[in-house]
Amino acid sequence: MSKIRIGIVGYGNLGRSVELGTYQNKDMELVGVFSRRDPQTIKTQKEGVPVYHLDEAKNMTDEIDVMILCGGSAKDIPTQGPMLAAIYNTVDAYDTHAKIPEYFDEMNKVAKDAGKLAVIASGWDPGMFSINRLYAEAILPEGSTYTFWGKGVSQGHSDAIRRVDGVKKGVQYTIPSESAINSIKSGESPNLSTREKHIRECFVVAHEGANIEQIEKDIVTMPNYFADYDTTVHFITEEEFEANHQGLPHGGLVIRNGQTGLNKENNQIIEYNLKLGSNPDFTASVLVAYARAAYRLNKGGVNGAKTVVDIAPVYLSMRSPEEIRREMI
Amino acid sequence: MSKIRIGIVGYGNLGRSVELGTYQNKDMELVGVFSRRDPQTIKTQKEGVPVYHLDEAKNMTDEIDVMILCGGSAKDIPTQGPMLAAIYNTVDAYDTHAKIPEYFDEMNKVAKDAGKLAVIASGWDPGMFSINRLYAEAILPEGSTYTFWGKGVSQGHSDAIRRVDGVKKGVQYTIPSESAINSIKSGESPNLSTREKHIRECFVVAHEGANIEQIEKDIVTMPNYFADYDTTVHFITEEEFEANHQGLPHGGLVIRNGQTGLNKENNQIIEYNLKLGSNPDFTASVLVAYARAAYRLNKGGVNGAKTVVDIAPVYLSMRSPEEIRREMI
Repeated sequence: MSKIRIGIVGYGNLGRSVELGTYQNKDMELVGVFSRRDPQTIKTQKEGVPVYHLDEAKNMTDEIDVMILCGGSAKDIPTQGPMLAAIYNTVDAYDTHAKIPEYFDEMNKVAKDAGKLAVIASGWDPGMFSINRLYAEAILPEGSTYTFWGKGVSQGHSDAIRRVDGVKKGVQYTIPSESAINSIKSGESPNLSTREKHIRECFVVAHEGANIEQIEKDIVTMPNYFADYDTTVHFITEEEFEANHQGLPHGGLVIRNGQTGLNKENNQIIEYNLKLGSNPDFTASVLVAYARAAYRLNKGGVNGAKTVVDIAPVYLSMRSPEEIRREMI
Repeated sequence: MSKIRIGIVGYGNLGRSVELGTYQNKDMELVGVFSRRDPQTIKTQKEGVPVYHLDEAKNMTDEIDVMILCGGSAKDIPTQGPMLAAIYNTVDAYDTHAKIPEYFDEMNKVAKDAGKLAVIASGWDPGMFSINRLYAEAILPEGSTYTFWGKGVSQGHSDAIRRVDGVKKGVQYTIPSESAINSIKSGESPNLSTREKHIRECFVVAHEGANIEQIEKDIVTMPNYFADYDTTVHFITEEEFEANHQGLPHGGLVIRNGQTGLNKENNQIIEYNLKLGSNPDFTASVLVAYARAAYRLNKGGVNGAKTVVDIAPVYLSMRSPEEIRREMI
């Protein structure tokens, strides 16, 4: 059986993790990495992976089945998505929630015109969390759904810390409120304010002689990022930072608390929970599974844009439908 | 918009819960309940629901869009399924795992010939747990998946207790091993024997003058049901039994522990966890959501048998695809 031929567009944290993801899927082969940088400057995780300038992508449509787009949602994906969906099946992790409808419409038109399939907004949120919000609400129409994130590193908030005067290095962990989660698990459906859902914990290395009290105040009062949350700031040494705060763990949960019964007397709780040692590795693993789905759906004559909720689970599995019925149902 | 017209076949615990489920879904209407019993003897949960003898089902194809089959998997579904899939879209909770491939093939042929759609083996296991086993393995190809059931009432094991000499009333709870689950959540991938995964806890009301020690021995040594497990037996009064052991709670979890990274250095844990106040209500809620999917798929020209993994999540939701992209992705 011929393998699914994968290309990677963009080679930051996510692109590197997608490279590793393709090695774990025996029905795939990685054809190459595409970047706007000089290919000579890029060192792939395993040696021997061809690296091309992004301009070369248009010449390789005979050699690649699915392009996995690993650029940023702010600037890269909105231009690269439509450009590449016009010539390839694509999968991306576009995560600007508010603009998903608009991006979907654009990708749908381009991909339909080209007879290609574009999976958009894949990953874990949007992605697996979206699927679980939908399943849980459809099964339990009367109830409340909650999404919590963490414990994990927020890139945006870490960047914000590093822009504060006197900060040398910094990282921010988003931590879901245990008391809020326990309240929901006990069958309550609380109305939770932003402050009640998550707390924010910061680890900061200050420049020598910096005003520690001022740094702490600048962080906890920062609008949009920290002012609406209970935020704690820990000052640590550079050695401790290097030793304990280099990873990109993340996770979270989608939980729905529903009621059934003649008088709504039965509480039913559905929880989907992720504990991720590496956020980019996990996001990449989801993208790679949806690359399989994109390939199969398009081979079956389906085109246009799809989100994860439009795709039946069976298309993601390496196993045949017969084997799934025999061993997994 | 016209409502989806539902019929219920079989009116035990599950059928009663499906009736209540249809009331929670505003796009559905319950047309009637069908039973092999004398309709006069059946009292529905809400008054005014028409009850018919099962023989009438063949005359109501113009009035019902989807039949939800609520009979038992041992005797009812294997005959009622093919009979009804020849004239209706159907949804069932067939749960004899070993015979699912054979049942699928039979239902697929019947439903294809009739141009109808048959969702088989829906519910939570098989059903939502099957979906989660598949998603988790597809996303994390290197890892181990575990399924635990409970804490909850096992009907089969409760029946077995009640057949023991001297037992007046009895109920059995299956309880997942906390130490096994904690080991998996900590990133280990243990090989677990049957005894290590679940314990069995029995609550028994003995007949007056019965030999308590003999009852306990007969239960814990019973082959197939209890001999392979750590089983505890509690003798309680009939009053306590009536007060505390009448519900049908259940639940469980599917958990996958996977590894990613260049040297598999990152642990990734996916957990799907159900805590169900009422097992039949929850199973029914899943069946009702898949009745919506069966109706929509068949209206779109799809026929034959499907399991839950063959159906895209979007078909289950009352919301439109546009609204889903705007609010849930």
